[in-house]
Amino acid sequence: MKVVIVGSVAAGTSAAAKARRNTETAQITVYERDHDISYSGCGLPYFVGGEVDGIDELTPRDPAWFKARYNVDVRTGHEVTAVDAEARTVTVRDLTTGRTFVDGYDELVLATGVRSVVPPLAGIDLPGVFTVRNPSDARAIREWVEQRQVRRAVVVGAGYIGLEMTEQLTRRGIEVTVVEALEHAMPRMDTDMSARVDAELRRNEVDLRLSTRVAAIEGDDDGVTGVRVGSPDDGDTVPADLVIVAVGVRPNLELAQQAGVRIGPTHAIAVDRQGRTSVKHLWAVGDVAESFNLITGEPMWVPLGSTANKTGRIAGDAMTGGRLEHRGILGTSIVRVFDLGVAQTGFTEEQARAAGYDIEVLHNIKPDRPEYLGGKPLVIKAVADRASSRLLGAQVIGASGADKRIDVLATAITFGAHVADLFHLDLAYSPTYATKDPVHYTGMALANAISGQAPLVTPAELDRRRADGERIQVVDVRSAKDRAKSAVPDSVHIPLDQLRQRSGELDPNLPTVTYCNKGVTGNAGQNVLRNLGFSDVANLSGGNQNYQQSHRTRAPAPSRADH
Amino acid sequence: MKVVIVGSVAAGTSAAAKARRNTETAQITVYERDHDISYSGCGLPYFVGGEVDGIDELTPRDPAWFKARYNVDVRTGHEVTAVDAEARTVTVRDLTTGRTFVDGYDELVLATGVRSVVPPLAGIDLPGVFTVRNPSDARAIREWVEQRQVRRAVVVGAGYIGLEMTEQLTRRGIEVTVVEALEHAMPRMDTDMSARVDAELRRNEVDLRLSTRVAAIEGDDDGVTGVRVGSPDDGDTVPADLVIVAVGVRPNLELAQQAGVRIGPTHAIAVDRQGRTSVKHLWAVGDVAESFNLITGEPMWVPLGSTANKTGRIAGDAMTGGRLEHRGILGTSIVRVFDLGVAQTGFTEEQARAAGYDIEVLHNIKPDRPEYLGGKPLVIKAVADRASSRLLGAQVIGASGADKRIDVLATAITFGAHVADLFHLDLAYSPTYATKDPVHYTGMALANAISGQAPLVTPAELDRRRADGERIQVVDVRSAKDRAKSAVPDSVHIPLDQLRQRSGELDPNLPTVTYCNKGVTGNAGQNVLRNLGFSDVANLSGGNQNYQQSHRTRAPAPSRADH
Repeated sequence: MKVVIVGSVAAGTSAAAKARRNTETAQITVYERDHDISYSGCGLPYFVGGEVDGIDELTPRDPAWFKARYNVDVRTGHEVTAVDAEARTVTVRDLTTGRTFVDGYDELVLATGVRSVVPPLAGIDLPGVFTVRNPSDARAIREWVEQRQVRRAVVVGAGYIGLEMTEQLTRRGIEVTVVEALEHAMPRMDTDMSARVDAELRRNEVDLRLSTRVAAIEGDDDGVTGVRVGSPDDGDTVPADLVIVAVGVRPNLELAQQAGVRIGPTHAIAVDRQGRTSVKHLWAVGDVAESFNLITGEPMWVPLGSTANKTGRIAGDAMTGGRLEHRGILGTSIVRVFDLGVAQTGFTEEQARAAGYDIEVLHNIKPDRPEYLGGKPLVIKAVADRASSRLLGAQVIGASGADKRIDVLATAITFGAHVADLFHLDLAYSPTYATKDPVHYTGMALANAISGQAPLVTPAELDRRRADGERIQVVDVRSAKDRAKSAVPDSVHIPLDQLRQRSGELDPNLPTVTYCNKGVTGNAGQNVLRNLGFSDVANLSGGNQNYQQSHRTRAPAPSRADH
Repeated sequence: MKVVIVGSVAAGTSAAAKARRNTETAQITVYERDHDISYSGCGLPYFVGGEVDGIDELTPRDPAWFKARYNVDVRTGHEVTAVDAEARTVTVRDLTTGRTFVDGYDELVLATGVRSVVPPLAGIDLPGVFTVRNPSDARAIREWVEQRQVRRAVVVGAGYIGLEMTEQLTRRGIEVTVVEALEHAMPRMDTDMSARVDAELRRNEVDLRLSTRVAAIEGDDDGVTGVRVGSPDDGDTVPADLVIVAVGVRPNLELAQQAGVRIGPTHAIAVDRQGRTSVKHLWAVGDVAESFNLITGEPMWVPLGSTANKTGRIAGDAMTGGRLEHRGILGTSIVRVFDLGVAQTGFTEEQARAAGYDIEVLHNIKPDRPEYLGGKPLVIKAVADRASSRLLGAQVIGASGADKRIDVLATAITFGAHVADLFHLDLAYSPTYATKDPVHYTGMALANAISGQAPLVTPAELDRRRADGERIQVVDVRSAKDRAKSAVPDSVHIPLDQLRQRSGELDPNLPTVTYCNKGVTGNAGQNVLRNLGFSDVANLSGGNQNYQQSHRTRAPAPSRADH
């Protein structure tokens, strides 16, 4: 059997290695257009920022290593330009010599990955304007930064790569302006969570321009000088000697389309659970291939190294007789943004509503470990399906422990966890790591909300219901000192320790919302009123802290005239 | 309804709070012998060490707080001395006034906790000898340390509390000797893992005396002066101006026994899944109650705050009409020992064998995140049932990320994970946190071992088989440089990149074991030989590193004459 693989980053090399582990008899050839193979693409920003010293740390393997270890022939500088699926051949160009040749295959794997989206902007080709895809990009950026002694940079796009680059350029002492067309950084998250990322960027003196479009990039042959944002008439030029364009990636579909492979609804290659495309003996793995939602089974495309490693291995196994099958993804991801870990898995609130779920939403704000040993606030926003009581997704932001909670929650979702299951988890307990875990509280609060014992209301729902004219009795159960700092508008103040005595001041038949700072004391107040016969009492999810955060979120951006 | 609760630390207060959340009409009284309530017992060593400044940080709540928030009467300084289960009354002594009174109950909750085991040693009552159970102990130790300017301490017992105290006393500049009767620190772990804890203690200049018994504590009325270890004839006195006795805890069963409650096989109070004892209207929660193994359902007793919080809440719910039920424990736990996190969940190898499982054992040694961003080695020892392929337990040790992996693995075990499920988990992927996760590798290696595709052999099994006279061909597939440092005895050296060509030097019909430094390259060599027709090839679990560690483990302790 002869296996030809096109592309040699995560998925292509995983497929090659797994196929070889299963059999010594297959002939395996990998064609790679570029020079670098099997590199850590997600590590590139840290090389630019200098947190990683040498690019070789991100590219530890070369063709000789693969040959010695796996008896796999990796041909770098070789571009596959055409596929003949009938004849089972590929046309290959040796980019060094310009020579073209034809190679046959029994099984062909497309691991062609993605390329950066390059918007058709004036000035996009100026020296000093970069995308961040491969080690060559990273080398070029670092060289530019060092040779030009870059002092001001504009990062276009506030997704993962944009924020990683922002952090790393700031780390080098460069003043960074981030320009994002949408309303928040991290636009894949719910706005009430991404607003916390906005705040962290600004706390680190990043000039964050939201709801802002790039009109043009300015400069000359010597290099970029600035970025024009806003409309051509009413704009503003941000001076910059470096521009990073990080507005997304798209699958490299040319070979697949030329071979007549079916493209799925997400605009990536449609594959079965082992990586087979619609064309016989033709497989697709990694970022170029479509995946599917672990919860719903619906097609889904989230290009991440984690999935690339899996799908490569699965296809390599399947084509050599194995039975591994992909089980779908939750889109679990994490990014470090200065001092915060920012993570998500499964559905956001917005996605869950769009998918038609009737959901319960909780904002849990708790320290990651006891504050007496340095615990820092950790915010978990979790979404559950009211009908099945299954956990659908979570977003977690915090200075430490976000990675742990997102992985525990992703694991629970994978096994179909009901929210009530979370409380029962026997998690490691020590004040140096965590005691009663935020995951436990998350499960308890969601279970009590779904059972009707302790309903929740989000700040956005409260505002919407009030805007719709509903008369709601909002009760602030905090101390006078806390209330003096900020409060939900039109709320009655009865501290929890007076609530039993003073409940007569409230109308037990009106819809009631209790709140405190973060949610726990509000829940205690909610229980008191419910047990005293109040018919409809909800607790404000995440309390006043989340309410104020949410209001900052939804307030209109100040117009330029306000400056 | 009147609820009386005896004991006010984690379980008692959890029961009270949950009962109150469910109903406003119950009268709830908690009797507490001591002064402090609802304290963080597991935080006490950190107050002694000064990592926590004030004891009030560990005792944030007082009876007034409970009254205001939950309308629960907490009576400190009140000891319940007798239970009359027929009459449903308790006899209470007010320790301040000496007055005794009788109080009635509808439901009685025993949350009487544990006490420290105090071995009957000569000198055990000397000033300067302490156990560590409650805030009074911690205050007394810190006062002693500061007033006496303690320079040398002996800690008796190398379990959780002993090691936490060792770390914290060392942190204060005190020279610490640890005396442990068993062969290793952390005796609940497998010896090949606890040996890594021994090494960490010694790296931090702790004088660790294993397989050593205390003969007597020496000193006078002014205080302790030393600890005599070994036999009276052939002993050694370790000078000390502080002795911490941390040799275990035992449930406070007096009230339960007096009330005729059934004690379970683990010598804690037998309860049903909601906390009911064998006596009507009498409940037991927290450390005094027995729990059960989540995997097997067998009775199990591991006194931990995590379980106390759960069982208290469950009983408080059940007695007020709720339906929560305890689902059992995995004994998940973690302790920080200087720079290492040391964690475990579920069965150890030794426990699994004792329980009759036919098991597969893997030592996975991988950095917790990419080394180019500071990843440090993380060792996961995982145990799986060959028959069902279910994961049974894991032990994790590493400088960072041990807590995350143990919680992910505990969650997976809770949902009945098969080892093959671990590879499919969609975990958060970023070089700043983790890329291809050690949990993924753990699952893959165990699945391949159980399927027969890539069998594993532990160092102990290899040695045992060789000692039994079996002829085994052991192949070192590492570089000559690595081999020069240390190697498995009587092994053939064929580096992996020569293995395909030189396989003819080996006998394909002999039982064969491949190995490398940590396991991954050994597995590659194993695959090559198996695919070339070798009939029986196992990979050495954890490679040479684990083999050498294991040998240090099993070597006899040097006799005193060797010094």
